[in-house]
Amino acid sequence: MNPDVAWPIWSRERAQRVESALDRALPAADESPQPLHAAMRYAVLGSGKRVRALLAYAAGELAGADPGVVDHAAVAVELIHAYSLIHDDLPCMDDDVLRRGKPTCHVAHGEAMALLAGDALQTLAFEVLAKAPLPHTQTQARAQIALLATAAGSRGMAGGQALDLSHVGDALSLSELERMHALKTGALIQAALRLGAGCGRMLDRTESDALDRYAAAVGLGFQVVDDVLDVEGTAQSLGKTAGKDAMQGKPTYVSLLGLSPAKERVAELRDEAHTSLFAFGARARRLNELADWIALRKN
Amino acid sequence: MNPDVAWPIWSRERAQRVESALDRALPAADESPQPLHAAMRYAVLGSGKRVRALLAYAAGELAGADPGVVDHAAVAVELIHAYSLIHDDLPCMDDDVLRRGKPTCHVAHGEAMALLAGDALQTLAFEVLAKAPLPHTQTQARAQIALLATAAGSRGMAGGQALDLSHVGDALSLSELERMHALKTGALIQAALRLGAGCGRMLDRTESDALDRYAAAVGLGFQVVDDVLDVEGTAQSLGKTAGKDAMQGKPTYVSLLGLSPAKERVAELRDEAHTSLFAFGARARRLNELADWIALRKN
Repeated sequence: MNPDVAWPIWSRERAQRVESALDRALPAADESPQPLHAAMRYAVLGSGKRVRALLAYAAGELAGADPGVVDHAAVAVELIHAYSLIHDDLPCMDDDVLRRGKPTCHVAHGEAMALLAGDALQTLAFEVLAKAPLPHTQTQARAQIALLATAAGSRGMAGGQALDLSHVGDALSLSELERMHALKTGALIQAALRLGAGCGRMLDRTESDALDRYAAAVGLGFQVVDDVLDVEGTAQSLGKTAGKDAMQGKPTYVSLLGLSPAKERVAELRDEAHTSLFAFGARARRLNELADWIALRKN
Repeated sequence: MNPDVAWPIWSRERAQRVESALDRALPAADESPQPLHAAMRYAVLGSGKRVRALLAYAAGELAGADPGVVDHAAVAVELIHAYSLIHDDLPCMDDDVLRRGKPTCHVAHGEAMALLAGDALQTLAFEVLAKAPLPHTQTQARAQIALLATAAGSRGMAGGQALDLSHVGDALSLSELERMHALKTGALIQAALRLGAGCGRMLDRTESDALDRYAAAVGLGFQVVDDVLDVEGTAQSLGKTAGKDAMQGKPTYVSLLGLSPAKERVAELRDEAHTSLFAFGARARRLNELADWIALRKN
């Protein structure tokens, strides 16, 4: 696949689609309390690759879902992701000043308001799912909320962040690193795919296992590329501070494997993603495109 | 009512009940990531008045609910409350070192882990509700999740906290102060009551309006008593730093009304709470006892 077409029209359209849906889901900037709503909108809108939303829409296509139903799942995972970025950037965590090409939320809105904005974005994610028009039955809708909560909580994303914190400066084995990333980024990526697919017809066990294998491959691939870009990218291309991991003594795929083997791992994981979806045929087209884009992205 | 019996056996039993339910809902301290789970358990277990849980159980009794069904609602509101306390105590917010008679979570577990523990406790609240055995139908169960999210988010508790932040050092009118507290503490108290009642038979419109009037009265009453105790109490009796509001230049009922009129307001609100439940007769017994306790409490 040619990297020039790695961001196909479909992805641009879906990214615009979730942007509008996020805009509608967020309280207006002039609704009280304005400082909080302004901080929430600042952190969510107008930037971000929307990878998780795109994965939700693409998995929805796999299961024949109406994009209008997937919107709510896409919005919910993007809100969870945005809240996690605000909190990760805070001075007591990664202390970062640049995110998505602009000052981080606490730099722009103050630490206290950024903390609250993250809190309220997490709440909003669950509110959106709880009020969404129903994909199937109420039982499945409630299961989707449970699924997102499990992925975001202490046994998922927040747990991965805690492992990351505990490991700064530690020597880490590759399997420990993979476990950390499986939680920190992998859990929410898997949730995005499962939520999106859950908006269509029920997948059978073989199909949902295949989707989970795809999720594991792109989730890990996404992280390895992040580590490679942290070494090779610039703040301008990345929209966030480059070289931070090495500076903070964080273990990465590059520090553990070396740069060249890390890039080989990216290619392997991309193949794995494609292979896992083989049985779906053309229905997996968008997911395959996204696996390519995740492997080939430059920011 | 004699203050000596302001904490009846029923309340002690229900407080123990929710303590056990919280213990079961929280991941074990030795489950990975241990530092996160230890911080979550530290902030939730072994202390706290459990007012919100007691209100949920008492509203459940009003509606003839099985306490075993109310457990999940009680746990969810206590988890939301605990998360909000951790984040409120952080250095970038109220910067407090003492809570429920022990060092605040960030003092004991570090700022980063406390931030994550708060995040993960919020997630867990929604997970618990999404996985709870059903009080009624799936539709009502999903409505309960939406209700809790609305109460906790930017139009509820987090919004009230943002208003509080924006108003430090400001001259505030009584109505602005009441609006702030209606969100900051009132919204979650109302949610506790509605969730608890929602575990029993459906209330009709008149009944649920009456319960909302009770909620407004005890929610506000709780806050006025807090302000009075902040002036009259000691750190030892309160289990948290006393005199903080005045020190931080925060507007309170005492600073706006004076101490004696603030106490009169507490008595009025207690009467209002009782009056609003008159039509329920003996079924409102526990709610009436809690209204007394909220007015007469010394910590």
